[in-house]
Amino acid sequence: MDEVKSIFEPRKVVLIGSSKMREKVGMTSPQLFHSVAYNMKKFFKGKTVVLDTHRNKGYTDLGQISATPDLAVIMLPPKESIPISETCAKIGVKALVMITGGYKDEQRRKLLKLKEEYGIRILGPNTIMGVINTANGLNTSFERNTMPKRGRIAVISQSGGVGACMLDWACFYKIGISKFAFVGDKIDVSDVELLQYLGKDKDTKVICLYMEGVKNGREFIEEARRIVEKKPILVLKGGITTEAAQRARSHTASIAGSDEVFDAAFKKAGMIRVGNIEELMDTAVALSKQPPMRGDNVAIVSNVGGPAILAADAVAKNGLKLAALAEKTKSKIERLYQGVDASNPIDMIADAKGERYSKVLELVLADKNVDGVLVINMLKSTFFEPKDGRVIPKIASKHPDKPIVDVPAGGEDFSKVYSVLGNTSIPLYNLPEKAVKALKVLRTYGKILGKH
Amino acid sequence: MDEVKSIFEPRKVVLIGSSKMREKVGMTSPQLFHSVAYNMKKFFKGKTVVLDTHRNKGYTDLGQISATPDLAVIMLPPKESIPISETCAKIGVKALVMITGGYKDEQRRKLLKLKEEYGIRILGPNTIMGVINTANGLNTSFERNTMPKRGRIAVISQSGGVGACMLDWACFYKIGISKFAFVGDKIDVSDVELLQYLGKDKDTKVICLYMEGVKNGREFIEEARRIVEKKPILVLKGGITTEAAQRARSHTASIAGSDEVFDAAFKKAGMIRVGNIEELMDTAVALSKQPPMRGDNVAIVSNVGGPAILAADAVAKNGLKLAALAEKTKSKIERLYQGVDASNPIDMIADAKGERYSKVLELVLADKNVDGVLVINMLKSTFFEPKDGRVIPKIASKHPDKPIVDVPAGGEDFSKVYSVLGNTSIPLYNLPEKAVKALKVLRTYGKILGKH
Repeated sequence: MDEVKSIFEPRKVVLIGSSKMREKVGMTSPQLFHSVAYNMKKFFKGKTVVLDTHRNKGYTDLGQISATPDLAVIMLPPKESIPISETCAKIGVKALVMITGGYKDEQRRKLLKLKEEYGIRILGPNTIMGVINTANGLNTSFERNTMPKRGRIAVISQSGGVGACMLDWACFYKIGISKFAFVGDKIDVSDVELLQYLGKDKDTKVICLYMEGVKNGREFIEEARRIVEKKPILVLKGGITTEAAQRARSHTASIAGSDEVFDAAFKKAGMIRVGNIEELMDTAVALSKQPPMRGDNVAIVSNVGGPAILAADAVAKNGLKLAALAEKTKSKIERLYQGVDASNPIDMIADAKGERYSKVLELVLADKNVDGVLVINMLKSTFFEPKDGRVIPKIASKHPDKPIVDVPAGGEDFSKVYSVLGNTSIPLYNLPEKAVKALKVLRTYGKILGKH
Repeated sequence: MDEVKSIFEPRKVVLIGSSKMREKVGMTSPQLFHSVAYNMKKFFKGKTVVLDTHRNKGYTDLGQISATPDLAVIMLPPKESIPISETCAKIGVKALVMITGGYKDEQRRKLLKLKEEYGIRILGPNTIMGVINTANGLNTSFERNTMPKRGRIAVISQSGGVGACMLDWACFYKIGISKFAFVGDKIDVSDVELLQYLGKDKDTKVICLYMEGVKNGREFIEEARRIVEKKPILVLKGGITTEAAQRARSHTASIAGSDEVFDAAFKKAGMIRVGNIEELMDTAVALSKQPPMRGDNVAIVSNVGGPAILAADAVAKNGLKLAALAEKTKSKIERLYQGVDASNPIDMIADAKGERYSKVLELVLADKNVDGVLVINMLKSTFFEPKDGRVIPKIASKHPDKPIVDVPAGGEDFSKVYSVLGNTSIPLYNLPEKAVKALKVLRTYGKILGKH
């Protein structure tokens, strides 16, 4: 466990690559090596030593480093990696992150022998992007200057490509991340150990997994089951169809079982399955910012008609219910605002500004018949301005027991409201259907917690 | 028909509103009036006369306008709208776009009487945003300086809010639009007539509909059926659940039938149904840029493993097939590029640049077993650069009979590639699942054309 901790929380890191050696496919290249060095120097708050095997012939140089690093990040081709890994193990490095791929079975066995002999732990090989920890700035990815915002979502990816896509997504949409781990071929450090670590990690509130297969199924499910009592686990499974599964096998050398088996296992473990990367990120944001939903009843509060109807459709399609508001709530709202129809979905009309949202949300959140609220505040075709949105987190903070999600539907409208509310506790979605999906996942987690 | 044409293709427009009168709910306000005037003056290539009823007391001023306008756009409250509409009708204005809402039955009847007496046609009332024609710059929306890019997608929306969201989406994501029509309460000009007009419109290649209900169901279906032989119609239906349908009835005063009835009607008409606004826009782009797909077999060509597996999963989920490439195709690719696995999905490995994409796509598109191609070119974790993407439209243009869609998966990666390829014939998607959905719709349209 301590060694796995060293992967994410080292005090000192040695980055080992070459400014000359080039082997594109396995991600060995001077350019990528320099990019990782750039990221480590720019972001990592601990100490980074960069060892260029081209300039420092003979790997014994490592011995000259005054204090032993906890972690070595290796970006050399397999043949060159093995002796340097051995040197690392001998001098007491606790863990290796093996960025490069293309290892043969014999080479993997040699690496594993180091673990057996010296206790050194290995993430990868073929992790491609390695690890990111936004708390201490550790960033072994070779995407120069790419660092997600600090937050409470951890991501484990079995695929470099899918992981890179999630990283890109998180950075672009400013999604708060705690840790990123690209597991690669998993010859040593397993999903189970990563789950264990993230389960205990104080910075992590939600765990996202992209997986194609699993090695120790039973152990994995048991660990997940324990963790979901404290924090939700979202999972995106790749290789669900026969052909894709075949490809997944050769892709990350993992055993992909039938999709039904996985589905049953996820359910048993209390993991929540999602359909694509956007859904994974969208629902992770909801889980990281909002409480689980304790019943099925959703209230929709909107300044436009059509999008509220689409939201109501999505509520039904997702097996949730439109809350039947208490008569008292309805009459209070309708007394306050002439012309407003307070039947759910509540149409507050196009001239609703912050004040009306504030009062109506206050009444709706206080209604016992309401378990969660979906707010729609379009800018186009209405009088709403982005700053009006500030009332939403304010009112929400008075009702920390009920989830609330917000839909500034559209492209530009979404980005304008996001620039005002993106950093608050309110998850934002560009379409009603995505917000309803987020509520659905909050409800699912509510049910999972209820069972335990 | 000529009168409906006047709604979209007037030579001269009179915009009638007030710089003083304010009635927020019905969208009467000096600010909105000035915004429409701004848009008309900035974008419209014909002549615009702005009539401010506050400054020009007594509506007879219209008589002083030298040449009669074809179209009057009215932004006054119902009571003030009716006499000015009558003046318009009397001097020979061919059509009215009634932006404002809140008309009582009696007032609607008065408007309809004008139609009967003078032949003047009425779009609305309660159209909120009216019409946009990117060919002549007509833009009666009150969103200042909001004009979509010229293109081949027409949009008809029964909801102001959903229409405004689509407009916002189209502008933000630079989607090419031919016409926008917000139909509002439809007391006169019907969906059927708008369909007829757009069916004949040379600038329109794809028609998108947001609808909550329909008045002349049979006529509507027959018209749609005729049109889909020449151009596809996509439909998003709001109010599919009982509660939402109830709200839809009061929202746009239309008769919402059961969802099954609509679904059957859409199928009969050869209209293609989609699930949300993003899907509507995404698939419209595909239909506007790419040919229909003539068989089920999809080839996936990718520089990353995991996202290709997710694409393959989506292919199966959407009822399409992974193409079984001809042995000749596979061996040619594998001879050209050592290490590339040419089984579909084709993993071209992270170091693939434009040249490899070009050669592999050429071979894949020429393969008789392939009906459509999904390309994935991530930037993160690969050596691909946005400019490498330029080979894709080049190769695609040699095979105009087979659709090709592209996935620069992610957030920043997508926007980078979009800035290079957004204006080309290649539809771009930020996730594999969305690109597969686009291929699925191209396949559906292929089947619809096959039936006729």
